Amino acid sequence: MVAVEMLTVGKELLIGRTLNTNAHWVGGRLASMGTMLRRVTTVDDNVEEIASALKGCIGRSPDFVMVVGGLGPTPDDMTLKGVAKFLGGEMKLDERAIGMIKEHYLKIGRAGVEITKERMKMAILPSGAEPIVNDVGTAPGVRFVVGKSVVYSLPGVPAEMKKMFRESVEPEVRAKVGTLHTRHVSLKLEGILESALAPMIAGGLKKYPEAYIKSHPKGIRKGISKIELDIVIVDVDGTRAERTARDIESDLSDKVKAAGGAVVARVERGK
Amino acid sequence: MVAVEMLTVGKELLIGRTLNTNAHWVGGRLASMGTMLRRVTTVDDNVEEIASALKGCIGRSPDFVMVVGGLGPTPDDMTLKGVAKFLGGEMKLDERAIGMIKEHYLKIGRAGVEITKERMKMAILPSGAEPIVNDVGTAPGVRFVVGKSVVYSLPGVPAEMKKMFRESVEPEVRAKVGTLHTRHVSLKLEGILESALAPMIAGGLKKYPEAYIKSHPKGIRKGISKIELDIVIVDVDGTRAERTARDIESDLSDKVKAAGGAVVARVERGK
Repeated sequence: MVAVEMLTVGKELLIGRTLNTNAHWVGGRLASMGTMLRRVTTVDDNVEEIASALKGCIGRSPDFVMVVGGLGPTPDDMTLKGVAKFLGGEMKLDERAIGMIKEHYLKIGRAGVEITKERMKMAILPSGAEPIVNDVGTAPGVRFVVGKSVVYSLPGVPAEMKKMFRESVEPEVRAKVGTLHTRHVSLKLEGILESALAPMIAGGLKKYPEAYIKSHPKGIRKGISKIELDIVIVDVDGTRAERTARDIESDLSDKVKAAGGAVVARVERGK
Repeated sequence: MVAVEMLTVGKELLIGRTLNTNAHWVGGRLASMGTMLRRVTTVDDNVEEIASALKGCIGRSPDFVMVVGGLGPTPDDMTLKGVAKFLGGEMKLDERAIGMIKEHYLKIGRAGVEITKERMKMAILPSGAEPIVNDVGTAPGVRFVVGKSVVYSLPGVPAEMKKMFRESVEPEVRAKVGTLHTRHVSLKLEGILESALAPMIAGGLKKYPEAYIKSHPKGIRKGISKIELDIVIVDVDGTRAERTARDIESDLSDKVKAAGGAVVARVERGK
């Protein structure tokens, strides 16, 4: 499986200010493409921390690393400095990036805006990195290759990150993954304890070692245990993915009912 | 500052199934206590990954490590195996933990429930770890010390994690942190670009190097730039924290207005 790591940067993620919805969104996109995030690391806006966390990511040799956050004009935006520190290289003003920034100000109706040092900062990139256009906000993203990993660094503003992910990252990841089919069924169960469900899941995994079958306990209300059960199949063969998921679902549903539980709802999640 | 790392375990966090609200909540609690999460790492339900990520955490010698998730009875709950692998030690059935599990089934009206091997699994702890009672769910937590770090491993079900955090983790962290006062003011700004705000923030940080001043761009709507600006002060002296935050707020508000922007809202966040 194509391995992807994510490094999210920003104090707001560490102090309970902002939920890490970017990791959630990227994880979901990758899962729908037939791969998955292997690890997410979140660090503070700190050059040493960013460099050390990126070193850790690259040391595990993933195919892709998604660095998200810390590309803006303010003093705490220091992701590219952290990246440059890790790469052991210089940073230099990138003319293509300056062009993108000017283009952005033109687009929002501030054609004459002065390129102050704060605005210039967003175009000072680690040597060897190429800028990626940001159609939504100001700061360009960057792409570079280190070891066997392709690294993307994108802004943390969700609308900017998502657009750049779809347009720049997805095509490259898809080309590496190939075409895979995902089938994801989620069942809501009642009246069975997770500890009673456990051997049924183990049986399913023994029969289908490649399947992902996982229970999420949702508490016991009015004496009734509630659980959500996920069944996910990823396969190059769409028909086989469909059939395997159906077989596991039917088998587990029968066992849950035989043990006195009930399947009260069923959701097919995004493919 | 007391250093805390968090290791969140679970495939659901990596495939866009579940938002990492636990890291968000723990981060907020710690910030209100005058410390903060230094790093959050999220890994899959995999013994090697858990052991390797925990090794990374301990290598950075934080005061506390919060491991969250993967303590239940199902086959994919393998956090304690990962912990034991990292510790290089044995796992053994803990009689105190078995007692806690039986107590739980008694409480939910299943006094006679058989202690199957799936239920027993939740009481097999790494040698040297002590169990922590779980008043809300079934799986006990554990606490152990390695190097200079105190490690807590808690269940991932939010209601269970929160109660155990408040009752077991908080008192120990508070004792280490001492009494600190936090002041957090959030301003909503309009009509100023983040790149124009940047030098004002830099000026504030130069005058108050211990302050946390950060802008969160919220996009440009109908030609008007919207930004949220956070000012956070942590100080042993509550009166001084109050005064510093007020000075920074007043100084930045004046500068924003002088540059043609406006402060359209003001929120004081949880202390």
